[in-house]
Amino acid sequence: MLIGILGGGQLARMLALAGYPFGFRFRVLDPAADCPASRCCELVQGAYDDPAALETFAAGCDVITYEFENVPAIAVRRLAGHAPIHPSPRALEVGQDRLFEKSLFKELGLGVHDFAAVETHDELRAAAESLGLPMVVKTRRMGYDGKGQMVVRTAADVERCWQMLGGRPLLAEKFVRFEREVSIIAARSAAGEIRCYPLAENTHEDGILRLSRIPANVPDSLQQQAEMHIAKVMEKLDYVGVLTIEFFVVAGANGAELLTNEMAPRVHNSGHWTIEGAHTSQFENHIRAVAGLPLGDTTARGPAAMINLIGRVLPAAEVLKVPNAHPHLYDKEERPGRKVGHITVVGGDSAAVDASVKRMTAMIGG
Amino acid sequence: MLIGILGGGQLARMLALAGYPFGFRFRVLDPAADCPASRCCELVQGAYDDPAALETFAAGCDVITYEFENVPAIAVRRLAGHAPIHPSPRALEVGQDRLFEKSLFKELGLGVHDFAAVETHDELRAAAESLGLPMVVKTRRMGYDGKGQMVVRTAADVERCWQMLGGRPLLAEKFVRFEREVSIIAARSAAGEIRCYPLAENTHEDGILRLSRIPANVPDSLQQQAEMHIAKVMEKLDYVGVLTIEFFVVAGANGAELLTNEMAPRVHNSGHWTIEGAHTSQFENHIRAVAGLPLGDTTARGPAAMINLIGRVLPAAEVLKVPNAHPHLYDKEERPGRKVGHITVVGGDSAAVDASVKRMTAMIGG
Repeated sequence: MLIGILGGGQLARMLALAGYPFGFRFRVLDPAADCPASRCCELVQGAYDDPAALETFAAGCDVITYEFENVPAIAVRRLAGHAPIHPSPRALEVGQDRLFEKSLFKELGLGVHDFAAVETHDELRAAAESLGLPMVVKTRRMGYDGKGQMVVRTAADVERCWQMLGGRPLLAEKFVRFEREVSIIAARSAAGEIRCYPLAENTHEDGILRLSRIPANVPDSLQQQAEMHIAKVMEKLDYVGVLTIEFFVVAGANGAELLTNEMAPRVHNSGHWTIEGAHTSQFENHIRAVAGLPLGDTTARGPAAMINLIGRVLPAAEVLKVPNAHPHLYDKEERPGRKVGHITVVGGDSAAVDASVKRMTAMIGG
Repeated sequence: MLIGILGGGQLARMLALAGYPFGFRFRVLDPAADCPASRCCELVQGAYDDPAALETFAAGCDVITYEFENVPAIAVRRLAGHAPIHPSPRALEVGQDRLFEKSLFKELGLGVHDFAAVETHDELRAAAESLGLPMVVKTRRMGYDGKGQMVVRTAADVERCWQMLGGRPLLAEKFVRFEREVSIIAARSAAGEIRCYPLAENTHEDGILRLSRIPANVPDSLQQQAEMHIAKVMEKLDYVGVLTIEFFVVAGANGAELLTNEMAPRVHNSGHWTIEGAHTSQFENHIRAVAGLPLGDTTARGPAAMINLIGRVLPAAEVLKVPNAHPHLYDKEERPGRKVGHITVVGGDSAAVDASVKRMTAMIGG
């Protein structure tokens, strides 16, 4: 079976590494000749909207998937004639537009904070009125790692925001004071079987994920709630593959509650701990799902953590000085703000994991 | 770091899959364009004794290793000028000649059964006299999976044996009635650190490994003895990488004893269970060793088994019907007697592993 992946970044690389043991072959489409997946997959070099590259990429693929949600509509249309696309074009359409996401969450009864679609300067001012300040304004499309968004705190900010982001379709949301950020990752097979990983607790800095930790410090009831939420979304979209939903944990009338923030129709950075930390990694389960296989066990082997390497690689020899630490380096050039690798910490009890995280964070910081 | 691997078979494939997370790159040299590692590594297609191919292969490699011991001497000489070779050319020289192996084992005080070097017809007859019949006669070089060997039971067999194997350097060994076959796999780092995996108990049919099972059904004292044996060999050869030694377990005066059969200076089929079954796989530890990194934890997660797929692939969907079974398919064409994949069974207690092995064996047989 030849599996085509749109995008040849680290997610495609880890998908392929998880999929080779099944005897599958992998081809990626990426504009960069030296993308991380190019080391271990067949590469078709080209733009995502280049018809010739898309044809070459799709020829002979048994199934096509993607490692990022900003796949141009033209690509999806062109590819759909060649092979099944999982997750479905409908899931992609929702996943690449924050308004569609939020509207779907609301429609399905998932807890969301108030939001408003904004297209004009007047609508932005109206949103500030109706939602109240502070509010968060985001571009509906193409945002990631905190890019394309702004916290609007004052009337003057409203004007600055329009200068920065105006002219594109926007989403304005009520600003949420949250206790913590968590994410749930689940896989759904072609047969409709759903398996969920435990909630990860995520720490962001400058809009970029720094640390994920499992188990998340939340009551069991939130795990159950998150599982029900993600199952609703997957079933609604007839989803096949791995899906991620990020939540804010907020103080509600009856204790901690989940507010649904956003989804990613793909494997996710907050699930990298599953490589060593779960019986089946998110990457393997995504490959199983899109290849029509049953899913693997998503339970955790024990407490685990994932620390991102951002901008600077920590050589494997350094990583291995820390007990239970496993390097995952993406073979990318160092560049400020760029995710160049991650480290999973798996083994021992929570205190041991915390101690290793602390040591590793100090090494990265210094 | 660019790691060159001589040979692009399934062992090279699994070495590369284990090494990518360290950010390393892999290049293999293999005569076949469609060798298993070609799917996930840079391939230099060429014969192992083709000077031009060897130059292309070696250019830019930081370290060179191999997935089989029958590397021609010319290759080793050519490559030695380009990059360090691990395990060392000396280990390779010993590992590719059964007489050198046996002589080394004897010199180091490892238990071996009586043997004799045979080059002429007269020497073969003399060996039959001195060792007694039955005896086993093997070619000193290039034997694998039971090829190039014969059990000699009668005087007439001696003549037949000479017709079959004569003219090449041979090794004659006393025939051993053994209780079981076991193997130990260990890794030694460049710094001299040694870590051993638990003994695997191996079942062969027609000279080909069918099943490995851990823990082996032997007393702990044999584990300690095997660890001492392999450490002696590794230290003597200043070995860097993974080494395998196969033993026969025989009834001795003081209970079960180990007789040393042969070694393989590489990762080994009887260690494939380590992929899911040990905290660090033999493949990862070999890569760590040759890359100058410290070794990882070699302890087992629990009971485990490895079943070879020989001649015929069992599709992943079938494999996954059996609890705790993990497919490892090599993307090779089916051919009688050819290893095309293996299945690891990891999870649950010994009874659960045995039940899954039984079911899997029935599926393969049927």
